[in-house]
Amino acid sequence: MQRGKFITLEGSEGAGKSTNLAYLAERLQALGLEVITTREPGGTDIGEKIRGLLLDPENSAMHQDTELLLMFAARAQHIREKILPAIERGAWVISDRFTDASFAYQGAARGMGFERIAEIENWVQQGFAPDLTLVFDLPIEIGMQRVASRGEQTDRFEQEQKDFFEKVRAAYLQRAEAAPRRYAVLDASQNLAAVQQQIRQQLNDKLAMELS
Amino acid sequence: MQRGKFITLEGSEGAGKSTNLAYLAERLQALGLEVITTREPGGTDIGEKIRGLLLDPENSAMHQDTELLLMFAARAQHIREKILPAIERGAWVISDRFTDASFAYQGAARGMGFERIAEIENWVQQGFAPDLTLVFDLPIEIGMQRVASRGEQTDRFEQEQKDFFEKVRAAYLQRAEAAPRRYAVLDASQNLAAVQQQIRQQLNDKLAMELS
Repeated sequence: MQRGKFITLEGSEGAGKSTNLAYLAERLQALGLEVITTREPGGTDIGEKIRGLLLDPENSAMHQDTELLLMFAARAQHIREKILPAIERGAWVISDRFTDASFAYQGAARGMGFERIAEIENWVQQGFAPDLTLVFDLPIEIGMQRVASRGEQTDRFEQEQKDFFEKVRAAYLQRAEAAPRRYAVLDASQNLAAVQQQIRQQLNDKLAMELS
Repeated sequence: MQRGKFITLEGSEGAGKSTNLAYLAERLQALGLEVITTREPGGTDIGEKIRGLLLDPENSAMHQDTELLLMFAARAQHIREKILPAIERGAWVISDRFTDASFAYQGAARGMGFERIAEIENWVQQGFAPDLTLVFDLPIEIGMQRVASRGEQTDRFEQEQKDFFEKVRAAYLQRAEAAPRRYAVLDASQNLAAVQQQIRQQLNDKLAMELS
């Protein structure tokens, strides 16, 4: 059995990750592949419990080192229990966020720095990385407008949020530029049909998969 | 205000840590010191929630890397939220277990190796360490008899447990031997009065504290 591939989707809120994850999974399944879709933080029973700790507003006193270690505790479980076994039996795994999100959110936006994140990444992953990371990139304002139009609450610290998400965006672009073979930056400000055309193009370019 | 000290108690089950932690706290308080007693994993609200994940039998599929990262996630919170602020205001902090337990249990008994543990220790603690670690040492059989006489259940995998705890014991002794200034190995097979005499002696020798 040929080893499957591991594809991760990254980007800020409002970039269209969820919709396009479903599209990509459906297109790969149409080729007869087994496809597993998953998400971070979480993806396993233990990981979803850790996600609960991370998202619980009661835990607002959480130190950023604690947050990062919890993220990677969930990720270690995710890799060993779910991702690797699937890939090894030939399945393709698509995850809504993975380690790049730790670099963007904790490393850049929270200011921990890429180097400290990379130390834990190496400890946990020992070289394991996605075969392809699709970065859904768009101007922060457009993403915020999309989130607002979904009827979700806008935050009262909007300006602070904007700076935060600018750092997230810049970090994704920086990482993509440093390793262009593994990353594909998609212009997510385009309409859905155009974004899906980019996805098909990138799957073809990077993984030689021709999606219909 | 003079900086307080951080003392940790280590050893296998049945070694008398809990009883002697209370004794040490009481003797230091009698000198007029502020004393904080705590434990690992746990010690903070967030840490106790992480402890809940670690101890829940439902999570038996937990990978050893996940376990170690959760231990250190709780520890990072413990150090920043509780231990350091207390020491900095002059309080003495006594913890039932700390990082040595990760070396003994995960590093030695579960076979992860000291080096992998040390990498996460350095990342989290950046040189922070106890001023004194009391290792309550006794032959495994005596500890097991004591636990059994407390009416707690003995495990049906007794022989396997014994090997496991032999590794824990050996790891503590190895670490104490490598850094004799920071560690005091106590003969915990003696009676309570004799163990407490050793505690007073060690506090005097290592930290120049004369307990009555």
